[in-house]
Amino acid sequence: MTTTADVFEIPLRWGDMDALAHVNNVQIARLFEQARVEAFHRWFGEQRRGIHLLVARQEIEYRAILHYSPEPVRIHCSISNLGRSSFEFGYELRDAKGTVCALAETTVVTMNSAGSTEPVSDAIRAILDEHRGDPVEFRRRRAH
Amino acid sequence: MTTTADVFEIPLRWGDMDALAHVNNVQIARLFEQARVEAFHRWFGEQRRGIHLLVARQEIEYRAILHYSPEPVRIHCSISNLGRSSFEFGYELRDAKGTVCALAETTVVTMNSAGSTEPVSDAIRAILDEHRGDPVEFRRRRAH
Amino acid sequence: MTTTADVFEIPLRWGDMDALAHVNNVQIARLFEQARVEAFHRWFGEQRRGIHLLVARQEIEYRAILHYSPEPVRIHCSISNLGRSSFEFGYELRDAKGTVCALAETTVVTMNSAGSTEPVSDAIRAILDEHRGDPVEFRRRRAH
Amino acid sequence: MTTTADVFEIPLRWGDMDALAHVNNVQIARLFEQARVEAFHRWFGEQRRGIHLLVARQEIEYRAILHYSPEPVRIHCSISNLGRSSFEFGYELRDAKGTVCALAETTVVTMNSAGSTEPVSDAIRAILDEHRGDPVEFRRRRAH
Repeated sequence: MTTTADVFEIPLRWGDMDALAHVNNVQIARLFEQARVEAFHRWFGEQRRGIHLLVARQEIEYRAILHYSPEPVRIHCSISNLGRSSFEFGYELRDAKGTVCALAETTVVTMNSAGSTEPVSDAIRAILDEHRGDPVEFRRRRAH
Repeated sequence: MTTTADVFEIPLRWGDMDALAHVNNVQIARLFEQARVEAFHRWFGEQRRGIHLLVARQEIEYRAILHYSPEPVRIHCSISNLGRSSFEFGYELRDAKGTVCALAETTVVTMNSAGSTEPVSDAIRAILDEHRGDPVEFRRRRAH
Repeated sequence: MTTTADVFEIPLRWGDMDALAHVNNVQIARLFEQARVEAFHRWFGEQRRGIHLLVARQEIEYRAILHYSPEPVRIHCSISNLGRSSFEFGYELRDAKGTVCALAETTVVTMNSAGSTEPVSDAIRAILDEHRGDPVEFRRRRAH
Repeated sequence: MTTTADVFEIPLRWGDMDALAHVNNVQIARLFEQARVEAFHRWFGEQRRGIHLLVARQEIEYRAILHYSPEPVRIHCSISNLGRSSFEFGYELRDAKGTVCALAETTVVTMNSAGSTEPVSDAIRAILDEHRGDPVEFRRRRAH
């Protein structure tokens, strides 16, 4: 995806499957959430205290059916856009065989413990910059 | 949203909340899934047998925090785009007070029981046409 | 189950099903949780403020496969035991056809907002007493 | 727990937390499900093909609040009872610090692909015997 991307191994759960015996599309959003939480933890360490990320937008493109397997999926995670008071995570999810099953992009706004949004601080911005990546290459476009 | 939209009342569950005590953004995707399943059931009746909808893309814009309440959310659901072998659901989710908390759009492809995609049949197309609605008016745009 | 039981209608979600296309046994625990939350809300009204219920034990007996349907399940809920600082909810879950699919019993301890357990107050005890029911008639016994 | 027990490391997800910011008690049942699925996979290998386990009863005792952490929980899993056409998994869940947070016991019946129950085969029984453990030492007893 990009040289600055980071990789997170997220194990699947049998219960992530739905009645079609696929990993459910909503649970795939759960996997991206977990990668985002782990990125936040790994990248920021103690500096993440008191900061919460509020999800403002999320887009997921499902490319291939994800089957349950004992092996974790691998999610490449990078910062695909960095604004004044919001930024975007870009992700690519591959199954254990290396097939790209889903791409996603999440716009988050930073929020303090009181629940108010606040600009991305310089310290956080510097760290995010180290994880900048390319825009997510969605194939499907909005119809409008 | 549109005159042809249909409304689905989906009750919340206490367990939909996350550690921030909000209805979790991933669970909001679960609510949209449920509205889509109920639309499919209500609109198609017995004609839905043997057809599965495979989600190919989903975009959600989160506008306001959704708090758990005993009252259901109301999801307006319409067909925002209709292609040869895929179509799009557009949704608007309002809480019990009428606040728009989230908008979404899901691109689905029709799949037969064997798991192969197939064109939207004329019978299905005619029904979808009755539920056509306006494009979803997302505020946030992709950065690229 | 009992004359003092209360009934809660809990709608199923398509996503409650697992890869066997049954409502998943863990999600059935989710349904009981929701019935308990609604009982707490309906029975106590404003008196529930500042009280949280911490689950200390739960036993579920699965009697029949629960299939997803657009109709809600009906959960009879009563207080099957009332101790000094804990009490038990007893439940019976029936599907839309009236089949008993699961029985359950949950031991909860009352907890204040600070996270400490505290004795069931007289006011709460009086309300719980109005909803007393018979012990849950589990068929299966612990082997030991 | 016992010398024949097996240990499964199950990572938590941030989304397992509920509005109290604890790992939710229903999600703890999800963790036990995952340990059971992994035990089934690890112990039986290819011999598990065509066999499904139907949960007939489950009892969970919650001993300590489980907090979300990046480290996985460790679940010791053993066969606490072995009958003609059913058997019981016993589990002990410890957090990353080694605190026992929950004990559980699940009665499962073996089911073939057609959905009928069938006796535990000799081959399966021999494997289960290798993982026999002590009864689960629940502190709380049913009131009746």
